[in-house]
Amino acid sequence: MPERKPGESLIKVILSGICRTDIEITRGYMNYTGIPGHEFTGVVEESDNSELIGKRVTGEINCPCGICAMCRINQGKHCFNRTTLGIFGRNGAFAEYLVLPDECLHIIPEHLSDEEAVFTEPLAAAFEITDSVHIKPTDEVLLIGAGKLGSLIAQVLKKTSCKLTVMAKHKNQSDFLKECGIDSVYPDQIPHGKIFDYAVESSGVPASFNLAIEHLRPRGTLIMKSTYHNNIKVNISALVVNEVRLIGSRCGPFAPALRALSDGSVKVKPLISDVYTLDEGLKAFEHAVKGAKGKVIIRNC
Amino acid sequence: MPERKPGESLIKVILSGICRTDIEITRGYMNYTGIPGHEFTGVVEESDNSELIGKRVTGEINCPCGICAMCRINQGKHCFNRTTLGIFGRNGAFAEYLVLPDECLHIIPEHLSDEEAVFTEPLAAAFEITDSVHIKPTDEVLLIGAGKLGSLIAQVLKKTSCKLTVMAKHKNQSDFLKECGIDSVYPDQIPHGKIFDYAVESSGVPASFNLAIEHLRPRGTLIMKSTYHNNIKVNISALVVNEVRLIGSRCGPFAPALRALSDGSVKVKPLISDVYTLDEGLKAFEHAVKGAKGKVIIRNC
Repeated sequence: MPERKPGESLIKVILSGICRTDIEITRGYMNYTGIPGHEFTGVVEESDNSELIGKRVTGEINCPCGICAMCRINQGKHCFNRTTLGIFGRNGAFAEYLVLPDECLHIIPEHLSDEEAVFTEPLAAAFEITDSVHIKPTDEVLLIGAGKLGSLIAQVLKKTSCKLTVMAKHKNQSDFLKECGIDSVYPDQIPHGKIFDYAVESSGVPASFNLAIEHLRPRGTLIMKSTYHNNIKVNISALVVNEVRLIGSRCGPFAPALRALSDGSVKVKPLISDVYTLDEGLKAFEHAVKGAKGKVIIRNC
Repeated sequence: MPERKPGESLIKVILSGICRTDIEITRGYMNYTGIPGHEFTGVVEESDNSELIGKRVTGEINCPCGICAMCRINQGKHCFNRTTLGIFGRNGAFAEYLVLPDECLHIIPEHLSDEEAVFTEPLAAAFEITDSVHIKPTDEVLLIGAGKLGSLIAQVLKKTSCKLTVMAKHKNQSDFLKECGIDSVYPDQIPHGKIFDYAVESSGVPASFNLAIEHLRPRGTLIMKSTYHNNIKVNISALVVNEVRLIGSRCGPFAPALRALSDGSVKVKPLISDVYTLDEGLKAFEHAVKGAKGKVIIRNC
């Protein structure tokens, strides 16, 4: 049972989702030791804030100190002293209980299912893109990668009415996108020399970095969602000569993610692959590692 | 004698400057064959535009087609069909004459010397930084590299009244900056862990890329002025986790460069190292390659 500090809530976990970062953590990413898991829905059992008790919540994963230089400029997710749920210095969601600061919690609208709400965190990461850059309805955008995160990004980008090209790898990815009204292409279907105003790299494959640069117009913007395990070789001169803008993009805002799930403008249900119990946690991870078709979910209760 | 096409002016070169790009070209950069040289002052001898004839000019080096997709969005310097003076598809300034489109030419104010005006092109490249991003008076900025371009960038950054730290390598660099009222430090004088809102890399040394990233705050901006000959290894994950913004930056606007030279707010005279005649061109290059203290100039007349 995790210990609740003042200003924190104790949350009984209902559902948790396995993300690629969790798998990377089992391989040594962040040198993290502790309970992983950072996508969840749960119910607040104890809190100093009585309005939260009994409420179904999901939560932002970066817990800021509130006083450092980054916190002072309202960049709590980059807090120098932060803990991060299931990733750094704070036990995570693959457990019966977790604790998070009250300020990290978001109450889930009643009509939203637990399964849908567990996508709030990755969907927020997708919304970070349109929160950081102005993608115009007249822009041409290339999205590389249509996995779990990619398919959420595709739906967020579609909202801008930009001319969107999604590069998918597997038939189940293009089938799901079709359900969302989004056409996709396979890598060999993008004409040589075709260029875009924006490229978003969310495939996790290092080769996609250079592919993205190749298909970017001069003064275009590359948005990096993928973290690669190793350093990769980059042609910096090409970035300078073409005055490319590269933007690293990580966690994002929960409020618009919950709004989009609530109003149905982003679909997530068909993305759920399989549901396991917490006791079956290792089996669930094995399934996710082997490459589940969608998100593997762990249900506690 | 170069051939003048309609819309182009024939210019008698007075002065030209040797830039690092010229040296890279002699080593095979851009696979360019032809007359190098892209920093110049000259006098228009022939033109369809009678107002230009007899005028002392300098010129933008990218000659756009005017009809391609980049030209249509007013990005002529990224024109897909461009020629670039002394760099790509167009003979350059280490000659008695050159031709450039009229639209590339800028008349040099009378009180500006030929020697000062030859710095317009590199100074414009420095102004590209403040033309691309909003560096605020409250920002902390690290400039890595105080060579010929770096010392111009330092003066442009100083105009923003930001808190500027310039990393110099040689005493003559810090001496010149001191004349401009700018303090500089040597690399080992920047405290470990010190972070900046912006880092500008203009040293040309690949190791400076990682140094810049190290000293950048989360969500900070790295402005890349250096082109490296080879691909370099980059930790992309660090850029993503810290949501760093990287901006490639090349040629810039001539008008503000001429204004700053005219009003004396940017100093260039002490940057001139040695003056050679065109006949002594090879000797001038040898001097520049060996590492002149400042800019090596070739004077025709």
